[in-house]
Amino acid sequence: MNLLTLGVNDLKKSMQFYRDGMGWETKGIVGTEYENGAVVMFQLDKGRMLCLYERKNLAWDSQVALQAQSSTEFSIGYFVNSENEVDTIMEQAKRAGANITKAAQQAFWGGYHGYFQDVDGHLWEIGYNPSWKVDD
Amino acid sequence: MNLLTLGVNDLKKSMQFYRDGMGWETKGIVGTEYENGAVVMFQLDKGRMLCLYERKNLAWDSQVALQAQSSTEFSIGYFVNSENEVDTIMEQAKRAGANITKAAQQAFWGGYHGYFQDVDGHLWEIGYNPSWKVDD
Repeated sequence: MNLLTLGVNDLKKSMQFYRDGMGWETKGIVGTEYENGAVVMFQLDKGRMLCLYERKNLAWDSQVALQAQSSTEFSIGYFVNSENEVDTIMEQAKRAGANITKAAQQAFWGGYHGYFQDVDGHLWEIGYNPSWKVDD
Repeated sequence: MNLLTLGVNDLKKSMQFYRDGMGWETKGIVGTEYENGAVVMFQLDKGRMLCLYERKNLAWDSQVALQAQSSTEFSIGYFVNSENEVDTIMEQAKRAGANITKAAQQAFWGGYHGYFQDVDGHLWEIGYNPSWKVDD
């Protein structure tokens, strides 16, 4: 689990959200020399990669039929070490055009979190768990 | 991006796939003291966590309406350092009851990969990219 590929509808628009809105680094759209290969890769910390790939290409590559968009299949957790950091990331996402589905608030399990959807409806949970120190 | 939460239909059945089938360690179902809190957590390498959480609870927690199941929203990439490792993991997944959607084979981008779906339809891509050395 060192790479996460998100199915997107419009590669350029989705790239802009993460690159320009969230400030993450990428070489842009690569792989266009292959018919179904266009992809955007973000190198995150500790060897993790986030890839954006058109939903129809993901269906083709995995040999699964393309299905209707859904936002309740998964959420990407981005846990940090303070409530302030949660607030900062949530504000950045909002400015970037994310849909805030749950404003940052106390969580039932004793921490602090909020949720937003990216431009493709994918859920991110930004959280702080006092009992989980996250290495930067 | 240090935690990935997968929406599942039956927490116990999904836990069995990853714990008993894939051999990953977990304390089992925890959080049952909260009404919508039951969750299964797997501590992966380098501080990564994989969580299983019922789809309806994910919808409740994120304040998003529960949507129909879909398999083309994302894939989890598990990249290793040889074709043999890809084969081993794909075989293990098959024995665990995964649905192999694409048998391990040469990939168009020059590497080697296969795809399977877990018991909830979530896609995993097991891959080897000769130009990407993965730290264990």
